[in-house]
Amino acid sequence: MQKTQTYIQENKDRFLEELFELIRIPSISADPAYKGDMLKTADWLKAKMESAGVDFARIDATAGHPIVYAEKMIDSNLPTVLVYGHYDVQPADPLELWDTPPFEPEVRKTDIHPDGAIFARGACDDKGQMFMHLKAFEAMVACNELPCNVKFMIEGEEEIGSENLGIYIKEKTAELKADVILISDTGMIANDIPSITTGLRGLSYMEVEVTGPNRDLHSGLYGGAVANPINVLCDMISSLTDEDNQITIPGFYDKVLELSDEERAEMAKAPFNQNDFNRSIDIGKESGEKGFSTPERTSIRPTLDVNGIWGGYTGEGAKTVLPSKAHAKISMRLVPHQNSVEISNLFEEHFKSIAPESVKVKVIPMHGGEGTVVPTNFPAYQAASKALERSFGKKPIPVRSGGSIPIVALFEEVLGLKSILLGFGLDSDAIHSPNENYGLFNFYKGIETIPYFFDEYREIKK
Amino acid sequence: MQKTQTYIQENKDRFLEELFELIRIPSISADPAYKGDMLKTADWLKAKMESAGVDFARIDATAGHPIVYAEKMIDSNLPTVLVYGHYDVQPADPLELWDTPPFEPEVRKTDIHPDGAIFARGACDDKGQMFMHLKAFEAMVACNELPCNVKFMIEGEEEIGSENLGIYIKEKTAELKADVILISDTGMIANDIPSITTGLRGLSYMEVEVTGPNRDLHSGLYGGAVANPINVLCDMISSLTDEDNQITIPGFYDKVLELSDEERAEMAKAPFNQNDFNRSIDIGKESGEKGFSTPERTSIRPTLDVNGIWGGYTGEGAKTVLPSKAHAKISMRLVPHQNSVEISNLFEEHFKSIAPESVKVKVIPMHGGEGTVVPTNFPAYQAASKALERSFGKKPIPVRSGGSIPIVALFEEVLGLKSILLGFGLDSDAIHSPNENYGLFNFYKGIETIPYFFDEYREIKK
Repeated sequence: MQKTQTYIQENKDRFLEELFELIRIPSISADPAYKGDMLKTADWLKAKMESAGVDFARIDATAGHPIVYAEKMIDSNLPTVLVYGHYDVQPADPLELWDTPPFEPEVRKTDIHPDGAIFARGACDDKGQMFMHLKAFEAMVACNELPCNVKFMIEGEEEIGSENLGIYIKEKTAELKADVILISDTGMIANDIPSITTGLRGLSYMEVEVTGPNRDLHSGLYGGAVANPINVLCDMISSLTDEDNQITIPGFYDKVLELSDEERAEMAKAPFNQNDFNRSIDIGKESGEKGFSTPERTSIRPTLDVNGIWGGYTGEGAKTVLPSKAHAKISMRLVPHQNSVEISNLFEEHFKSIAPESVKVKVIPMHGGEGTVVPTNFPAYQAASKALERSFGKKPIPVRSGGSIPIVALFEEVLGLKSILLGFGLDSDAIHSPNENYGLFNFYKGIETIPYFFDEYREIKK
Repeated sequence: MQKTQTYIQENKDRFLEELFELIRIPSISADPAYKGDMLKTADWLKAKMESAGVDFARIDATAGHPIVYAEKMIDSNLPTVLVYGHYDVQPADPLELWDTPPFEPEVRKTDIHPDGAIFARGACDDKGQMFMHLKAFEAMVACNELPCNVKFMIEGEEEIGSENLGIYIKEKTAELKADVILISDTGMIANDIPSITTGLRGLSYMEVEVTGPNRDLHSGLYGGAVANPINVLCDMISSLTDEDNQITIPGFYDKVLELSDEERAEMAKAPFNQNDFNRSIDIGKESGEKGFSTPERTSIRPTLDVNGIWGGYTGEGAKTVLPSKAHAKISMRLVPHQNSVEISNLFEEHFKSIAPESVKVKVIPMHGGEGTVVPTNFPAYQAASKALERSFGKKPIPVRSGGSIPIVALFEEVLGLKSILLGFGLDSDAIHSPNENYGLFNFYKGIETIPYFFDEYREIKK
């Protein structure tokens, strides 16, 4: 892989320029206003794959945003790696909290990234991480050092639930035949502590609407005699968790995989400092389910968060309205053995059951997906571990993550393939937040590590 | 008053046209974007007062929106009536719930108003009601039948707390000398059940902000380990009332004037049908403080309502954010002897005390004012009662209202003047709501009744 690594070093600046081009297209999948930009991004990726040397690249239409598919088959006796990533990004709002415009990437130095980090929506999630694979592939092909067959499947709906990808993989099972799926859409502990994600949480995302009176009322004339849907919604949300921050939905914990004391002791060895954590996000005190540590709360335990709430008058000044409706978006992160459909149903049933007679309640399941666990004893994990050891000079730590990539569970179910989660992001990357960023170190370290993975994977599979 | 009544009949259509002109100017005091329209409205009113025959009219600047002042002194031996009203209106949002544009008045027939009602923001509150006084005055002057001296004080900040009017009346105490204040900014029971408002609630309006982490976080990576400010805000709001819908703020009820069983029995005689009430706003069941009836809950009891709430992602689709901040606007309606400043302080102290260590809380008092009680045994009440009897053919019922006109308590404190609340609105007018409307019957009945009030008042004061 020496030639490949040299090629990467020599083309670093161009790789970054190309990533900037990709980032500048605001491919927000959640907002129909950006449909044209989604297509533009897919076209751009297809062209980049073609120039990098794939056998062919295709834009496959779906009922939603298209999937970019490409492959390079060099030898049917060699293992095949299916690279998955996504070109869609989260909405950028609240815009006013960004220091620079979200779709105009800028490199700035930070305490964590003294060499500079790229600030932009999608810098890390997942344009920066996905693009590393295209550039590593380009380098391996250019230097005649590609060790395995490669397939690329880059979707445009990860941030909105990957619903059409679920349909796609069922239709394309034969074409997607591979030995393993390789994904860079997760993080590692720190730039000097490489790690591999060995678990992801599932997700169940709901929208709720509480209706009181059939129109907005004057809070003076009606207040006190009519249930206020905001007050009721607050009561209902408040009752979803108890004093110990346990979720009160009946049956919610029934299938949760409880870890043994031994497993928890093993987890506790990963470096973590509560004070640093609190300082990094400026909170006076952490908060979460009683009896569990912060790393446990964000990985092996399910959670419930209100992601958005709105109702009544939210403009300047004071309006004395007793509103007709109040809304919230509520999501639950799930752990192995919890099923997202089951949990969505339990939520809906419970939420409706706790509504007082004075209001009407609607519950709309938005999207969901299952969690996953990656075993450390399978070949691709070993290859990833060795690859990271080669690029970082130290053995990576296996870590369970709190995030969700629901499609990973479906890959296993439909394609029978395990995924290896080789992510280079950091918690401080502020993905899904204003000022999302991705270290130049991380971007280049990813491009450097990926060829090692291919190399090690071929060796192990021999 | 025969000539005056004939004049009114003959000029009905023009009066309505003029009201439409007034309504078309979107005088939203809460939104700085409408500053120009506020001035335009004040100019328009001044011109109308002048053409109606006042001695002089003035636009008096304040630190906020101006006050339109005018007077006609015919004889210093006659009683002087100070007419108060406001030309500002509530914001019109949510715009999508209006059947016709809020500032394009339209007359439509309804079940309650078979003769038609004016649909527009401000149709009733308070442009429609305030303008009745200008037209009644015009008629009395035109017919040489004005029985008393008249002063007009029409402000532009009633919907945002009348703060500058409070300063104004302290400065103009001498000029504002009068025998009584006459206000049409309240309602009556029904078009065939005239009533006079004998009490108003006070108001304490707060805005709160709960901050968790210093930036929006990914709910997967942080969820479960960091207090979510929306969840916390819901918990805090929920805890402000108990199972009996009593407000839990310590000391909140200490000064509440409790009515005797006799007084409550007297109140219970006013016609009220709970089923009709529920049907009119399409609710399955009423809700409120345990042990009190709906009419009591909206008049003699204090309340707490969330008027608006917002935080996190509220757009289309699903965004898995753990937001940095959550906000709410919370108002309390107060009853006699509760002081709005004291209550605001109690709220602030309590709200901060119940915040968990994991968040920071800001409490911003927005505006407030005191409640008031109008005695039925003073001359202006008698005059109003007789005037309504003349125009409606039946004696009006005294009723305590749940709304607030905080300036009324200040009028008494600063000017030493009682106010008579001669309102012609109905509960169904949807003031502060989409599709605000005001019956043509009510508009004309008001113009007809006001001259009778002047006539009766002069008789009683002789």
